[in-house]
Amino acid sequence: MKKIVLIRHGESVWNKENIFTGWTDVKLSSKGINEAKKAGKILKKHNFDFDYAYTSYLKRAIHTLWEVLYKLDLLWIKIKKTWKLNERHYGSLQGYNKEKTSKIYGEKKVFLWRRSYKISPPKIKKNDKRYPGKEKKYSNLTSHEIPLGESLLDTFNRVIPYWKNEIFKKIKNNKSIIIVAHGNSLRALIKYLDKISDDKICDINIPTGIPLIYEFKKNFKIKKKYYLNI
Amino acid sequence: MKKIVLIRHGESVWNKENIFTGWTDVKLSSKGINEAKKAGKILKKHNFDFDYAYTSYLKRAIHTLWEVLYKLDLLWIKIKKTWKLNERHYGSLQGYNKEKTSKIYGEKKVFLWRRSYKISPPKIKKNDKRYPGKEKKYSNLTSHEIPLGESLLDTFNRVIPYWKNEIFKKIKNNKSIIIVAHGNSLRALIKYLDKISDDKICDINIPTGIPLIYEFKKNFKIKKKYYLNI
Repeated sequence: MKKIVLIRHGESVWNKENIFTGWTDVKLSSKGINEAKKAGKILKKHNFDFDYAYTSYLKRAIHTLWEVLYKLDLLWIKIKKTWKLNERHYGSLQGYNKEKTSKIYGEKKVFLWRRSYKISPPKIKKNDKRYPGKEKKYSNLTSHEIPLGESLLDTFNRVIPYWKNEIFKKIKNNKSIIIVAHGNSLRALIKYLDKISDDKICDINIPTGIPLIYEFKKNFKIKKKYYLNI
Repeated sequence: MKKIVLIRHGESVWNKENIFTGWTDVKLSSKGINEAKKAGKILKKHNFDFDYAYTSYLKRAIHTLWEVLYKLDLLWIKIKKTWKLNERHYGSLQGYNKEKTSKIYGEKKVFLWRRSYKISPPKIKKNDKRYPGKEKKYSNLTSHEIPLGESLLDTFNRVIPYWKNEIFKKIKNNKSIIIVAHGNSLRALIKYLDKISDDKICDINIPTGIPLIYEFKKNFKIKKKYYLNI
């Protein structure tokens, strides 16, 4: 039986401080490191084994994956890192406290930015110090690909082609896969896999550091999904 | 100016206990983890930056690389892991204390196994539990490739083709490279780079966790080499 495992990275230092993070490359908090270790322990207990790992270009996800693979004694497997699994880019909200932002812009507006499917937050300009084009790791992206601020739909539009053209092909080729990514890149994937409507997807929250298992039937349709927390 | 950085992994728990390790996949000691972190700090202080990292299939090297990249804020770069950079396979000596082995076989013989270029240690059989062919991570190797016990020459014969066909091509292609590997896989590489004779190479010891820098001239001949320890 084919299974894949999705994990949202452990708590980051900005999750903890309730700051819009997006593509800001903040590290895990010590609680986040422990969540990652625990995820690894649980997967080990259930005898999970992987051939390939996928993660983003952001250290909170890469670090979480590392802790999981360390526990599983699978540090040697191939890890594909890609910006396509990065968190949703939060535009000019990145770096700002969520509560404070609500006070400035009003709760309704911030709620829309956070929870609507198609509305993107205010965009950054290319001369903003937060513009990803300034970073070496994004130097291979076309300027069209570099986000200035994404809606969940925008995130969906980069995550799902990557899933279809890269990850799902590996699954069909009988590889065991783990994906460690972010609240919104995983939300996009779950929307696609579970065929969730635009309205409903934004209510779905993925807990940090809890392995989410999808089991596939022989025809690669989804059989069931569940969280593994003990 | 082109540079490459070689690092021998930090102290492992078996280095500490003076046991022949070879392909046994033992973890870093806490001293080894600190050596790795220190190597990362030193490289950061000297503003090193990398495009690609190479390491072996063994966790003491992978973990060392991880700590270095963490310090350099380069977790996102591509890491190529290969068995070709593994430690020399120590045959049937693997798992045995070096001193004890000397008492059983005599110091002269053990000295030859450890320090001659062409003599390999006693080989293991394919039904030995230490046979790498039993491990999933070596399942892509042909049975001819899987070592039963290697001389340094045998190690040289897998490391150098990998250097020529893979790593050196990247360097010529203007990529900045870090290699984290093992006492003998690095010794093989150094033998090749510095044109050291069969007799002399075995006297050369590479310290754990100290970045060894090679600088190349424009024509990719070696300009100089040095350890970076502060």
